[in-house]
Amino acid sequence: MDGRAAENVERASLGLALLLYDNPVSGNCYKVRLLLAHLGLPYERRTMDVVDRSNRREVLGELNPALRVPTLVLDDGRPLAESGAIIWYLGDGTRFVPDDAYERAQVLQWMFFEQYDHEPAIAVARFWLAYSGRPEEFADRLPERIAAGERALTAMDRHLDGRRFLVGDALTLADIALFAYTHVAHEGGFDLEPYPAVRSWVADVAAEPGHVPIDA
Amino acid sequence: MDGRAAENVERASLGLALLLYDNPVSGNCYKVRLLLAHLGLPYERRTMDVVDRSNRREVLGELNPALRVPTLVLDDGRPLAESGAIIWYLGDGTRFVPDDAYERAQVLQWMFFEQYDHEPAIAVARFWLAYSGRPEEFADRLPERIAAGERALTAMDRHLDGRRFLVGDALTLADIALFAYTHVAHEGGFDLEPYPAVRSWVADVAAEPGHVPIDA
Repeated sequence: MDGRAAENVERASLGLALLLYDNPVSGNCYKVRLLLAHLGLPYERRTMDVVDRSNRREVLGELNPALRVPTLVLDDGRPLAESGAIIWYLGDGTRFVPDDAYERAQVLQWMFFEQYDHEPAIAVARFWLAYSGRPEEFADRLPERIAAGERALTAMDRHLDGRRFLVGDALTLADIALFAYTHVAHEGGFDLEPYPAVRSWVADVAAEPGHVPIDA
Repeated sequence: MDGRAAENVERASLGLALLLYDNPVSGNCYKVRLLLAHLGLPYERRTMDVVDRSNRREVLGELNPALRVPTLVLDDGRPLAESGAIIWYLGDGTRFVPDDAYERAQVLQWMFFEQYDHEPAIAVARFWLAYSGRPEEFADRLPERIAAGERALTAMDRHLDGRRFLVGDALTLADIALFAYTHVAHEGGFDLEPYPAVRSWVADVAAEPGHVPIDA
């Protein structure tokens, strides 16, 4: 039995079949933790630094081509990367992914929107301002990200006006994916006051049974 | 019958159940066109300008929260946005999406990697240099995108070394998604010579029966 196999047996004996390479302040990691909490699945967390990335190749080199967190390792040692792919793997077949083909595609639409339009603006501005330790280095690039984040929040607000959740009438992976950085957007310098439908949705997602905060 | 319903009836009578808001040089649109060609599905194309975006709100405002192409309208008028969500909707249940849950998640992993790491580097550099009409305006920001694109190509090359396709042993949506901008990366100033596994994969994807080029 090699090292990883022995480790898997030990984790399984503790009821920890899933291993999450994680960072406590990363919204991308929080998506996975929030879904795991809703699903009641036990897992082990291993914290990776998001500022000092010097050990990424060594730790994640064989697990994640992009060398990022979150990275999930299944009970048989197989790795999975990208927050969207991880939550789809864990969530498909549960109440967080609809059965209808069009609604499934709408969930993915919002998850791709999050990774392409929302995260690169709101998560990046938040990292620069609140977690990088050197916000002054990014000051000249911040306005572009703020403008892009405001466009993303405007798109969400238009869609959520008159709706309780992003797709259908219940919480899905789309809400979990977009809640992660929206609810901490103020740390990136965003004011949610102009987006009443977004604020109402944030409150509704946080009030769902099984919800856990980002710092749980 | 309102205007859109009448239009849908007319399109259906022509065998054009699907309407694609498209741009001929957009790799994101090409992903959809390439999959539709493999699937043998007829559709109507409506070209949107990718430089002059002044009519986006008017045309796409009720169809796509991000006001981008591709946007697909189904035969019943329901819209779908984000290239990844569109090709998942069209491809799930066909040979381009595996049945196995882990392989399905791997396909999504590469599709999210494409939208987060690959497209914002390679597609953006290509747009700036070859299609924006004002490449000099972006010259100072180009090196960062080139470096990011080279990291994405390196990640692909490491993974493809010893593999014919990105997931499993046949063409999937992951290959279609990543082929779109990789095979025209030279237009963004990228040289594929240092990535032999990527070059071999590009040739294999283009040699698949049913393949169509980006300018078809």
